[in-house]
Amino acid sequence: MTDDSKFQPAWSEKPPAKKSYRSIFKWGSPDEFKHPSHAWFTMLKEEFGMTDKDFKKPQLEGNEQVEIRQKIKMSPKKIDQIIGIVGKNNVETDDYSRVRYSHGKTVDEAMDLRRNIVRQVPDIVVHPRNKKDVQKIVEFCNQGKVPVYVYGGGSSVTFGLQTPKGGVMLVMGTHMNKLLSVNEINQTAVVQPGMMGPAYEEALNEAPERFDTKLPYTCGHFPQSFEYSSVGGWVVTLGSGQASTYYGDAYHLVVSQEYVTPAGTFKTHDYPGTATGPKINDIMKGSEGAFGILVELTMKIYRYAPENRQRFAYMFPSWEAAVDASREVVQGEFGMPAIFRISDPEETEVGLKLYGIHGTPIDTLVTLRGYKPMERCLCVGTAEGEKGFARHVRDQVAKICKHHGAMTLTGFATMRWEKTRYKEPYMREDLMDYGIIIDTVESGVTWDNLHRLHEGVRAYIKNRPQTICMTHASHFYPQGTNLYFIFILKMIELDEYRKFHKGIIDSILKHGGSISHHHGVGKLFSPFMEKHLGKEQMAVLRALKNHFDPKNIMNPGGHLGLDMDI
Amino acid sequence: MTDDSKFQPAWSEKPPAKKSYRSIFKWGSPDEFKHPSHAWFTMLKEEFGMTDKDFKKPQLEGNEQVEIRQKIKMSPKKIDQIIGIVGKNNVETDDYSRVRYSHGKTVDEAMDLRRNIVRQVPDIVVHPRNKKDVQKIVEFCNQGKVPVYVYGGGSSVTFGLQTPKGGVMLVMGTHMNKLLSVNEINQTAVVQPGMMGPAYEEALNEAPERFDTKLPYTCGHFPQSFEYSSVGGWVVTLGSGQASTYYGDAYHLVVSQEYVTPAGTFKTHDYPGTATGPKINDIMKGSEGAFGILVELTMKIYRYAPENRQRFAYMFPSWEAAVDASREVVQGEFGMPAIFRISDPEETEVGLKLYGIHGTPIDTLVTLRGYKPMERCLCVGTAEGEKGFARHVRDQVAKICKHHGAMTLTGFATMRWEKTRYKEPYMREDLMDYGIIIDTVESGVTWDNLHRLHEGVRAYIKNRPQTICMTHASHFYPQGTNLYFIFILKMIELDEYRKFHKGIIDSILKHGGSISHHHGVGKLFSPFMEKHLGKEQMAVLRALKNHFDPKNIMNPGGHLGLDMDI
Repeated sequence: MTDDSKFQPAWSEKPPAKKSYRSIFKWGSPDEFKHPSHAWFTMLKEEFGMTDKDFKKPQLEGNEQVEIRQKIKMSPKKIDQIIGIVGKNNVETDDYSRVRYSHGKTVDEAMDLRRNIVRQVPDIVVHPRNKKDVQKIVEFCNQGKVPVYVYGGGSSVTFGLQTPKGGVMLVMGTHMNKLLSVNEINQTAVVQPGMMGPAYEEALNEAPERFDTKLPYTCGHFPQSFEYSSVGGWVVTLGSGQASTYYGDAYHLVVSQEYVTPAGTFKTHDYPGTATGPKINDIMKGSEGAFGILVELTMKIYRYAPENRQRFAYMFPSWEAAVDASREVVQGEFGMPAIFRISDPEETEVGLKLYGIHGTPIDTLVTLRGYKPMERCLCVGTAEGEKGFARHVRDQVAKICKHHGAMTLTGFATMRWEKTRYKEPYMREDLMDYGIIIDTVESGVTWDNLHRLHEGVRAYIKNRPQTICMTHASHFYPQGTNLYFIFILKMIELDEYRKFHKGIIDSILKHGGSISHHHGVGKLFSPFMEKHLGKEQMAVLRALKNHFDPKNIMNPGGHLGLDMDI
Repeated sequence: MTDDSKFQPAWSEKPPAKKSYRSIFKWGSPDEFKHPSHAWFTMLKEEFGMTDKDFKKPQLEGNEQVEIRQKIKMSPKKIDQIIGIVGKNNVETDDYSRVRYSHGKTVDEAMDLRRNIVRQVPDIVVHPRNKKDVQKIVEFCNQGKVPVYVYGGGSSVTFGLQTPKGGVMLVMGTHMNKLLSVNEINQTAVVQPGMMGPAYEEALNEAPERFDTKLPYTCGHFPQSFEYSSVGGWVVTLGSGQASTYYGDAYHLVVSQEYVTPAGTFKTHDYPGTATGPKINDIMKGSEGAFGILVELTMKIYRYAPENRQRFAYMFPSWEAAVDASREVVQGEFGMPAIFRISDPEETEVGLKLYGIHGTPIDTLVTLRGYKPMERCLCVGTAEGEKGFARHVRDQVAKICKHHGAMTLTGFATMRWEKTRYKEPYMREDLMDYGIIIDTVESGVTWDNLHRLHEGVRAYIKNRPQTICMTHASHFYPQGTNLYFIFILKMIELDEYRKFHKGIIDSILKHGGSISHHHGVGKLFSPFMEKHLGKEQMAVLRALKNHFDPKNIMNPGGHLGLDMDI
C-alpha cells in the first residue's frame, strides 16, 4: 500500500469519557491536545515501517468505565474514624477515585489502564483540609498501622503514586492548595504543598494586587509538568525546572518546610545560612513521602521581569561543539543563562520537525551554511534577571557559541520551543493510540563523563531496531549537566518493555550516570537504588526512615528502595 | 595619673617559648603580630577607664612550659596496637602534644591556658598517613570503645577540639594535607581534609604549573581563619568565607566527600544534580566529626582572575540605609558581589580606627559631608568573576548605594580592610596581656528580623557597663544575612565571663537568630541546640548519630548537643 501524503490520522480531539480509564492516563487537561506534526507522522511511518493503514483505527483507547474488583480491606470502623477527622465529603471509596489517585503518568501505567488492568489501589482516598487533619490522620494511621500514600499533582513518571499496601491515599491539592503569604522583605512565599504550578506562578505574578507587594514575583520553577504538578511534589521528588540553570533546582528553592511524621511534626528554620549541624531542611528534601507528609513550604521567590528576558538560539556543527560551548558558558562566571538546552543530532532533526522549523527558510539556510543533518545540534535558551545582567549573559553566550562554530538562529527557534514546551506530553496519547510508545529516562552527569554516558546509553537504545532516541542536556551546572533521553518505539508487551527499560537504567549505571536527575525515585528506580548509592549510603536512608516511620506506614512497599524486602 | 599621649604598651613581639602554654593559645604564626593602633589604644583606655599604667606590665602571659597531671588511661597494649597501625613516629603521648591538639582558639581556652589550667586532654595524639590508617583506627577504636577526636586546623572557637572522654586525637594536617588532583573539565579539585587554606589556594592558583591545567583556579573560600584552618574543617563545621556572597558557603563548595565511620566507609557521588532521595553528601556536612572522619573531598573550584576584581567602599548615613541598600543589592538579580560587608555605627567608628582611616583626609571629608559618627555606617566590598560581570555588579552596587544616600570612599577603605583581614585575630593576645577580652558571636538571620536581632543582642551586650559592641553583616543571601557581634570588655573571671556569654546566646535565641552562622556548634553551643532546633529535629540528628556511631566513640561528650546527658 502506498501512502497518501495528505492523510492525517484522526488524532483524538475528544475529551475522555467521564470516569473512564482514559481520563486517568491522559495527560493534562481533558480537552487539550497536541498532535504530532505531519513531519513527525511521516518520520514515524518511515522509522517503524508503518503505513497510513496502521493509523486508521486507534487501539486500546481505554474509554471503558473504571471498574475494579479490589475489595476495601480497611474496616468500616476505621473508615468512620477517618471520616470523623476530615468529614464525610472528604473521604472517597468509589472505584474511580481509588484508581485515579493511585496512578501517575508512568508509561507502564498507561499501558495497563488502556487494557483496563489495575494492579494496586488504596482502600480510601482522603482530602485533608489542613495541617491538623494531616496530623490527626498520620497519628491515627500510625497507631493502627494503616499505610499512608500521598498524591500531589499526579504527574509522577516513576510509579510515585503506587499503593502496594493499600490503606489511605492523601490528596493534597483539593484543599491545601493556597499561597498563604508573600514576604517581600525576605523574598519568600509560604505555600501549601498541593498548590499547582500555574496557580502558584499566577499568584506570585499578581502579588502587588493580591498581597500588596511593591513588585511582582515569579517562582522560577517551570518543569515540563508545570501545569500538572504541585509545589510540594517539586520538592519531595527533587524536580528541576526548565530555567533551573539560573534559578536552581527545587532543592535550592526551598527555604523551610513543615512535616508531619509518625515521629512528630516540625518546621525547619528559615535562616538563609546557619552552621548548627547537618541541615534538617535538606535532609527532608527528596524524601518522597517516605518520612512524612510535607504540609507547608517557605520558598524563595524572584523578581518577575519578563520584559528583561533575552532569547537566543544557535545551531552547532556537532554535539562536541555544543557540549564544549555549554561548559564554557556555565563555567564562564558571567552569570548563568535561565533556560539553556542543547539537543544531540538525532533530537535536533526530530526537534526541527516538532517545533515546525523543519522545511522553513531558516532550516534551508542552516543546511546551506553547511550544518549537516545528523551532525548539527540545536541550542535554545534565555537569559533572565536584571536587564543589564540578562543582556550581558546573552552577549557572552553569543561570543562563546560563535567561537565554537555555531550560527545564530535568533530567538525564533526558542520562541517555537517555548510555544510547545508544556504541550509535548500530550502527544503521548496520540502515539499510543496507534501502538507507539514514547518515554524518557534522564540522568545527572559530570562534564568529563558526558560523552561516555551519552554514547553508552544511546548505543543500548539504538541497538534495538526501529527505535528513535533523542537526547538533550537542559539543566546546567559548572560541574556538569543532565542527559535526558527520549525514546520512541513501536508498542511491545509490558514485560518486554520493562525489560528494555531496565536495560536502559543498567546502561546508565554502567556508564556512570545517576539513575535520576529530576524525576525522583518512586518505585520505578527503587530496585536500582542500593546498587547506585552503595549499601552504606542506603543504610543512612534506611536509618532515617526507621527514625521517622518505625512502623513503616509512610509510602510503604519499595519507595526509594527502602523496604524492597517486604 | 594623666596619660602620656606618646606612650605605647610594649606589645609582645616575642615568639612564645617552645612548648609553652602561650605557644598553644597564641593565634597564627609564632612570629607574626598585629598590634592595636594608637587610636584603638586610646579608645580602650577611655572605654575601660584604664590608664597607661595599666599597660605597663603584661599579665598571665602563659610563657610557662606545659606540664599536666592527667594520666594516660589507655592501656600500653592499646597504644602499641595503634602504633602498629600508623608507626611509632605518628603517635605522641607527651604532655605538650596532648594539650596542643585538644585546644582551639575559644576565648575560654586562652583564659585557662594563661593560668596553666588544662581541663581535658586525649590519651594519645595520632597522625594518620592516609585513608587506610583512618579506617583501621576507627575500626580498632570502635571495637575497643575508644573515643576518637579530630584536629583539623586548630582554629575552632567553639570548643571544637575538646576531648572530654580522652582517647585518641587524630591530627589530619600532618600527612593528609595534599591537593591530589585538579579536574579542569569538571572544575573540581580532590583534596585531603588536612590541607590548610593558603597551601590549597596556592596550589590552585598554580594549577597550570602543578597540574597542567589551561587556567589558574581559586577555592573561593576565605574565612578570617583562612591561614590557620583546613579544607576539611571548613566543611565539617559549615564555615563561610569572606567572599561567600558570590562563591557560596563551604556547604555549597562541596561536590562529594569520603567518610570513614564506625558504620562503614563511603564516598558520595559527584553528580552536579541528582534526584535519588535525600542527599547523603549534604547530610554529612556539618557533622563535626560526630558521625565519622572526613578523609577526602571533591570541591568546586573557580577561575582565578584577580585582575577582574573590582573594589568599592561606601559610607551610609545610617544602619537602616546600609541594610536596605544591601538587601536591594543581593535581591537585585544582577549577580552577587564577592565580598560585601556593612558595619553598624559602633563598628564603623572602631573600624575606622582599626583600618587606619580615622583621622585621614577621607575621614574628615566624610564628616564634613554630614555622615555623623555613631550614625554613619561603613560598607566595603568587591565584585569578582568575568570582567564585564564584575564591572556590572560594581556599577549596580554604586547605583543602589547612592540611591540610599551613601557616599563613595572609592576602593581605598576596602584595600585597608583587605590588608588586615586575616591579621585581626592577632590582637587578641595583645589585649588579653593587659586584661582585655575580645570575643565574637554570630548568627544567621532573615532580613525581616535583622533589626530586632541587632537591637536585642546589642542591648544585652551594651547593658553591661564598659563593653564595646561592634556588629557587621558579611555573608549575604537574597533571603537574609548574618550578624557578627564583636565585643570587648575588661577581663573578668571565667565563670562570670561564661555567664555573660551564655546571656548573649540566650539573647540571640530570644530575638530569633540562629545560634551559629558559620562558627559551627562544637561543644560551646551544644547546650543550646535542642532549644534551638526543637526536640523533633534534634532527634533526627541523634538518629543519624546512632546509625553512624552506635557505640558513641566519635567526638563524644556533648558535641553538636548529641549526648548531653552522658
